Amino acid sequence: MTGTHTGTLFGIGVGPGDPELMTLKAHRLISGARVIAYPAPDSGESFARRIAAAAIPPDAEEIPMVVPMRADRFPAQEVYAGAAERIATRLSEGADVVVLCEGDPFFYGSFMYLHARLADRFPVEIVPGVSSLTACAAAFGRPLTARNDVLTVLPGPLADAELRARIEAAGAVAIMKVGRHLPRIRALLAEMGLTARAGYVERASLPEQHVSPLAEAPDEAPYFSMILIYRGEDPWLTRTPS
Amino acid sequence: MTGTHTGTLFGIGVGPGDPELMTLKAHRLISGARVIAYPAPDSGESFARRIAAAAIPPDAEEIPMVVPMRADRFPAQEVYAGAAERIATRLSEGADVVVLCEGDPFFYGSFMYLHARLADRFPVEIVPGVSSLTACAAAFGRPLTARNDVLTVLPGPLADAELRARIEAAGAVAIMKVGRHLPRIRALLAEMGLTARAGYVERASLPEQHVSPLAEAPDEAPYFSMILIYRGEDPWLTRTPS
Repeated sequence: MTGTHTGTLFGIGVGPGDPELMTLKAHRLISGARVIAYPAPDSGESFARRIAAAAIPPDAEEIPMVVPMRADRFPAQEVYAGAAERIATRLSEGADVVVLCEGDPFFYGSFMYLHARLADRFPVEIVPGVSSLTACAAAFGRPLTARNDVLTVLPGPLADAELRARIEAAGAVAIMKVGRHLPRIRALLAEMGLTARAGYVERASLPEQHVSPLAEAPDEAPYFSMILIYRGEDPWLTRTPS
Repeated sequence: MTGTHTGTLFGIGVGPGDPELMTLKAHRLISGARVIAYPAPDSGESFARRIAAAAIPPDAEEIPMVVPMRADRFPAQEVYAGAAERIATRLSEGADVVVLCEGDPFFYGSFMYLHARLADRFPVEIVPGVSSLTACAAAFGRPLTARNDVLTVLPGPLADAELRARIEAAGAVAIMKVGRHLPRIRALLAEMGLTARAGYVERASLPEQHVSPLAEAPDEAPYFSMILIYRGEDPWLTRTPS
């Protein structure tokens, strides 16, 4: 394990949930990995690990980064600092370290907290993954963007005033990380007269996926949920294919 | 080939260019396909077909959709109309038809022109793919979005005034399909004082990939090129990892 070279840090997108939506490259790197890190909640299973589970070698060293799932999900920097040091030790010893990232590593991912701590000290390779953005559009069965559409991606935790201003100015809109903000955002969109143009998707690509018009969304949304809105001239939800 | 059931239309994202960035699902469906359609230029090779080439069965029926690569790339609707009818015939006969899509089928893809013509008549399944958006961020080695960043995705062909207004209002920005608009957009960003915050990526994930600060971008950009800009409080291009 101690070598003359430094290991590479791999940030690997494992896609939105369906293990078959991992890339061939992610699958190859995970299958050959000796050290694998991933975010995990303080109770229950790591979602990223669950996606990649079938590819993880049984004898791989696993480094779960246990991040408390508090209501506001403020990133637990101390957890990432500790994990970064443990990972840095393994990289220094010459071992490659694979970090599993839900969706894509650089698209609203917690991988950035490791990246910021390690990228100046070790070689890094990012393997992009299928993001929830396009997985939700696929689940909904409508193009996310076409031709010269402008797409705005909004995190659900933003305040009403900012969401409203952004949505008013936008063409196609995806609101990510809806979760506990669902009732508030639903009320806002109703007030803006956009309910009929909005779709709701949760747990895209998983067996428990739910897809519906926003009006028929459940009362409680998981963290991995998204609202898609089309405001352009080509009404996204109402267009009759021709 | 004539069956009692109707075939399914598969819109399959083959990712940004590296064949290893195809998903396991895309690879499985393409490997088992009997009818495969894909966009192709009027001279040269189909990019989508090139990505998937190693997985395409030698005896598969291929339906190239030859779209003239005119300067304005206005979609040749007659081409898609003709292809849609040929595909509809095969679907009606009970054959599944796989359509190869660069990146993701529903993210600025020409697949929408088939989808709009066929989705009301045949079962459709979309297989999301790795989009150029996250592939370019991976190539550039910087997170595209973090925490509660707002991301604006802009097509390069938009007029200066709209680009300017959108960029001024945005946090993280990705300008897609830069191509022949590069000199104009570069001048606009210089005027806005954003050159130092902008990165340029072309042909992400391919061996001929080019990544540089925008200031060092070549004078001519291919269609598959992107500019990434970070305007938020956490300067994307200048941040020192800590």
